[in-house]
Amino acid sequence: MVIVMNHNATDEQIENVVNRLESAGYRAHLSRGIERTIIGAIGDETSLGDAGIELLPGVENVIPIMQPYKLASRVMKEQGTIVTIGDVEIGGETVQVMAGPCAVESKEQLFEIAGRIKETGARIMRGGAYKPRTSPYAFQGLAEKGLQLLAETREKFGLLIVTEVMDPRTLPLVAEYADIIQIGTRNMQNFYLLREVGRYNKPVLLKRGLSATIEEWLMAAEYILNEGNPDVILCERGIRSFETFTRNTLDLSSVPIVKHLSHLPVIVDPSHGIGKFRFVPPMALAAVAAGADGVMLEVHSNPLEALCDGAQSLTPKKFGKTMVRMAAVAQAVGRKL
Amino acid sequence: MVIVMNHNATDEQIENVVNRLESAGYRAHLSRGIERTIIGAIGDETSLGDAGIELLPGVENVIPIMQPYKLASRVMKEQGTIVTIGDVEIGGETVQVMAGPCAVESKEQLFEIAGRIKETGARIMRGGAYKPRTSPYAFQGLAEKGLQLLAETREKFGLLIVTEVMDPRTLPLVAEYADIIQIGTRNMQNFYLLREVGRYNKPVLLKRGLSATIEEWLMAAEYILNEGNPDVILCERGIRSFETFTRNTLDLSSVPIVKHLSHLPVIVDPSHGIGKFRFVPPMALAAVAAGADGVMLEVHSNPLEALCDGAQSLTPKKFGKTMVRMAAVAQAVGRKL
Amino acid sequence: MVIVMNHNATDEQIENVVNRLESAGYRAHLSRGIERTIIGAIGDETSLGDAGIELLPGVENVIPIMQPYKLASRVMKEQGTIVTIGDVEIGGETVQVMAGPCAVESKEQLFEIAGRIKETGARIMRGGAYKPRTSPYAFQGLAEKGLQLLAETREKFGLLIVTEVMDPRTLPLVAEYADIIQIGTRNMQNFYLLREVGRYNKPVLLKRGLSATIEEWLMAAEYILNEGNPDVILCERGIRSFETFTRNTLDLSSVPIVKHLSHLPVIVDPSHGIGKFRFVPPMALAAVAAGADGVMLEVHSNPLEALCDGAQSLTPKKFGKTMVRMAAVAQAVGRKL
Amino acid sequence: MVIVMNHNATDEQIENVVNRLESAGYRAHLSRGIERTIIGAIGDETSLGDAGIELLPGVENVIPIMQPYKLASRVMKEQGTIVTIGDVEIGGETVQVMAGPCAVESKEQLFEIAGRIKETGARIMRGGAYKPRTSPYAFQGLAEKGLQLLAETREKFGLLIVTEVMDPRTLPLVAEYADIIQIGTRNMQNFYLLREVGRYNKPVLLKRGLSATIEEWLMAAEYILNEGNPDVILCERGIRSFETFTRNTLDLSSVPIVKHLSHLPVIVDPSHGIGKFRFVPPMALAAVAAGADGVMLEVHSNPLEALCDGAQSLTPKKFGKTMVRMAAVAQAVGRKL
Repeated sequence: MVIVMNHNATDEQIENVVNRLESAGYRAHLSRGIERTIIGAIGDETSLGDAGIELLPGVENVIPIMQPYKLASRVMKEQGTIVTIGDVEIGGETVQVMAGPCAVESKEQLFEIAGRIKETGARIMRGGAYKPRTSPYAFQGLAEKGLQLLAETREKFGLLIVTEVMDPRTLPLVAEYADIIQIGTRNMQNFYLLREVGRYNKPVLLKRGLSATIEEWLMAAEYILNEGNPDVILCERGIRSFETFTRNTLDLSSVPIVKHLSHLPVIVDPSHGIGKFRFVPPMALAAVAAGADGVMLEVHSNPLEALCDGAQSLTPKKFGKTMVRMAAVAQAVGRKL
Repeated sequence: MVIVMNHNATDEQIENVVNRLESAGYRAHLSRGIERTIIGAIGDETSLGDAGIELLPGVENVIPIMQPYKLASRVMKEQGTIVTIGDVEIGGETVQVMAGPCAVESKEQLFEIAGRIKETGARIMRGGAYKPRTSPYAFQGLAEKGLQLLAETREKFGLLIVTEVMDPRTLPLVAEYADIIQIGTRNMQNFYLLREVGRYNKPVLLKRGLSATIEEWLMAAEYILNEGNPDVILCERGIRSFETFTRNTLDLSSVPIVKHLSHLPVIVDPSHGIGKFRFVPPMALAAVAAGADGVMLEVHSNPLEALCDGAQSLTPKKFGKTMVRMAAVAQAVGRKL
Repeated sequence: MVIVMNHNATDEQIENVVNRLESAGYRAHLSRGIERTIIGAIGDETSLGDAGIELLPGVENVIPIMQPYKLASRVMKEQGTIVTIGDVEIGGETVQVMAGPCAVESKEQLFEIAGRIKETGARIMRGGAYKPRTSPYAFQGLAEKGLQLLAETREKFGLLIVTEVMDPRTLPLVAEYADIIQIGTRNMQNFYLLREVGRYNKPVLLKRGLSATIEEWLMAAEYILNEGNPDVILCERGIRSFETFTRNTLDLSSVPIVKHLSHLPVIVDPSHGIGKFRFVPPMALAAVAAGADGVMLEVHSNPLEALCDGAQSLTPKKFGKTMVRMAAVAQAVGRKL
Repeated sequence: MVIVMNHNATDEQIENVVNRLESAGYRAHLSRGIERTIIGAIGDETSLGDAGIELLPGVENVIPIMQPYKLASRVMKEQGTIVTIGDVEIGGETVQVMAGPCAVESKEQLFEIAGRIKETGARIMRGGAYKPRTSPYAFQGLAEKGLQLLAETREKFGLLIVTEVMDPRTLPLVAEYADIIQIGTRNMQNFYLLREVGRYNKPVLLKRGLSATIEEWLMAAEYILNEGNPDVILCERGIRSFETFTRNTLDLSSVPIVKHLSHLPVIVDPSHGIGKFRFVPPMALAAVAAGADGVMLEVHSNPLEALCDGAQSLTPKKFGKTMVRMAAVAQAVGRKL
């Protein structure tokens, strides 16, 4: 870190900062300018901490300069991580599509949608058995029954299943049924849940928090990696801004940035990012063009009757058309669908 | 809700919307304007839902007009709620102060701070035994040992204890030790945790989420109230904005707004809102002037050595001075400290 | 607009609202629900105004339901606007690229860059003669001298010129030299400047304000259109969010949304949106995939020595490669470059 | 500034950065850590610029560490600035109140309101003759006629006048009539206008931009100060956030922060910050408690008929009560009204 001293800091104050840094385990490097003195603290900030420097007399500002994440960093691991499940690779040449309803509603619903998804060539099905809802009066999901229906769907259609866990107490159950365990946007900093999924041997889809910086998102991944689970897939799904026309503001620039800072694969969920089905296909194309390793799309055979998020769901027909167009864009950027 | 039809919606499309509304249980009220037709849907949106209206042909926009919360609403209960713990009232004439360290570190630390807080007349002590930290490498709290130290402090100094729960699995333990159970900003939409604390007979301090609208915050309170626990205290602690000088942007306007929309008491935590101790006292005064029912302040005897959030902690001496100034402002707005 | 009455509004209060609406020129439509009464006000909100309804006793909320823009709306003009300058069309099948340096620095600089741009097939050159700079100590542009250099460049290379105007007093000069007059993000709500360019017969490139909603952006276009200038090109260039890694948050979802709400063409400036050259090419590809009618890119032969925004400028070589890749994506989505 | 090198930067790359810094006029200070090398650049960043360092090979990040403003900085001038107009001081012991209608509508309106304001002891009247309106169809102000009415009001009631300028072409006129020239939020970065008012001998009220950081706001003040006008009064009026219940999010923490960073006086406009009259008085009290040097309030005798911003205007009666309460809070924090 770098310590900027006040313009009128005394020699004694400067010495005091240096002493404190050194007793905390840092080496201190002084740069005396005309207006101010700057002190570089050399050492591992992650383990040495900030030593309370900001509170010492004469200190104006303390600026951290090291990335706080290690295991998630591309510095640590130059080669991009490919998460492999059977013959499906996430982070490789193929852009993977995860499609399905917001919530599991019934076997008929799942089978109908799964059949349509399967036809398009997509390999992974999404569907929530536990639903985080803003209102306690809204449909909260079928819970274990929903997980069982997902498992039946996997068996019948040969699709992989990604589904959300909200509570460490139901994690053993979810992990038993899911191929990929999803951590939703509201739980991105539910640190106990992150640690728990870090102890499982299952890939984790980690959605970006509604108001999480890219650095905080990578720090959340770090919690999982630090427990020993290397298979984290990041998912951009829109952040909160002042714009009210869209449900959220889909920050596609996070895709190339994450790929620069980290070795982890990153996918995009434009359905939640936008919230209106009409604008989902162009943003799915844009996600592929921006370099995403996958796209997650809400698909429902009858959005009008969906128990959750109908307004942002594509019909199977629209989804099929979007798959064709995504394939064309994928090819244009040197990948395939 | 109100349905705005496209400017070129056909009579058939309008009729279709009306039929669907009626079959969902609404009464529909047509207003034909020169440019557009508007349909008012009369009925309880909370239980009837949106009926997928947004997806019907010819519909441009659907605007909800009812507050989605009921139990938290002042419409439901005109009289302001006073949360009473022994002889301490939150939401009454007295502005309550909750003070203490970010994290419980040791018995010596707690006792030292508790003694200084007690002297100022404050009645409630804060201190975290389970700490939500952005980094997995940061101090995570003393866990149960920390709870025990808080209990000892309560016994010795007669202060009430507020402490955070992060995980439904440790809730029974936290509830056993705490006088007020805190739900932190990152868990404001941890719905399973909200439901669980709703089943306890202990007051809950519900911090506003980093990017939660006031409505979403009241909906989170609704989850707790809906399980039968009436004692929810709301806590404004800053929201995320583009400004980077402060840790967060303390939204003091939420105080009079919450008191208008809801009967629940609301307090303010300027320490987390600002993140720099120097600016905490003026914002504490502003919170009292804005009508807050309480103020939560981080106090540490030696902020330099604090294991967490030293930079935003007041020393006991600065805290004592702030108490005196808050008392003056409280009196100026017709309350007392 | 729709007026939502308090749950305990009296009949007299309701009648009072109805009377006021009618005397303001609206027709009022009452919908009495069990919990609340809703009043639909039928009439042209743009000319009739809000009649102060929000302040009447018993009124809880007033919700505008009409789009406040008319001339910019696709309701008004279903066919997309194509801005034509010579044989260059913006808003047609071809995705137009506008490239060049942040600031005009010298003839050598301009000619060097123009030659490289020309080679790639791009048709429009950007370059600022008047520069809005956060600091009064930063390079403020060459002013009229810069305009003259741009004109020489146009003559020599046959490229169209887009350049920014910041002050109504220099507009006549800028309009004399420019093919497209740019209104920068900081002037999106400089209403006198908007009105002035509305009186010229030159296409206007209107950048989205840093914190402007899509609706406010279209209202700014409305100011220009309302003065008689039909040739407005909208330009998404990033909005302000809490994320600090990027200079701004490029909101690509505004592209399909603007094309849905308005008939005006819309282009994207990823250079300012991201602020770091490394991430500009993938976002340029994403812009094309999302349906943008053009892309604006900062290109400098020697970014290291650029007087402005070097960090986000592409070298001519990187720009050339990006053109090839954009052409592939354009083709994939049924357009050409 | 501080330059952070990549973890795998070569010695040659490091040397290259040092050479470039030195040829730009900086002294360079190397700190070699285990993981990375950090280079401190000692020199005046404001005049030396960034030298394109960010683009050099091996550079990961460039962190500016000096405040970019000088004249506005408290480092430059420790004593707080008091803006004096006749016997009215802004920035002194007295908290000054500026009250009046959003827009000048007629002589009767102004005289009626001025009389009521005068009674309360306030010394400064606000009122817009040129109005920045989101819609081109909304009332745009009485222009010069409005200025004349303000002048008549000043003469009759002995109140000082603050009124907004939007266009450099009308500045001579506005400066002739106004005691304090207001720069509105949308023009905070209208740099030509800032420079122009900097050449006048009249105090300038500079509102914070809707999405301006505190640093950008002080940089806007720097533009004015740099032209020779020392009398800048800053005005916090709310920033844009995701919260939609309020018109803006009033960032009261900017008050103590500005007073720490700068010597300029700072006032607060809660009317625009909140946008709903009901919540304006508590926020006015909070502004005084936070240390503001003044409060600006919209007051209208008949908000229902106001041509602009009626919903956020106080009646003279409510304003009178608020004055009494603000006086009590001012006294509680050691000031007077």
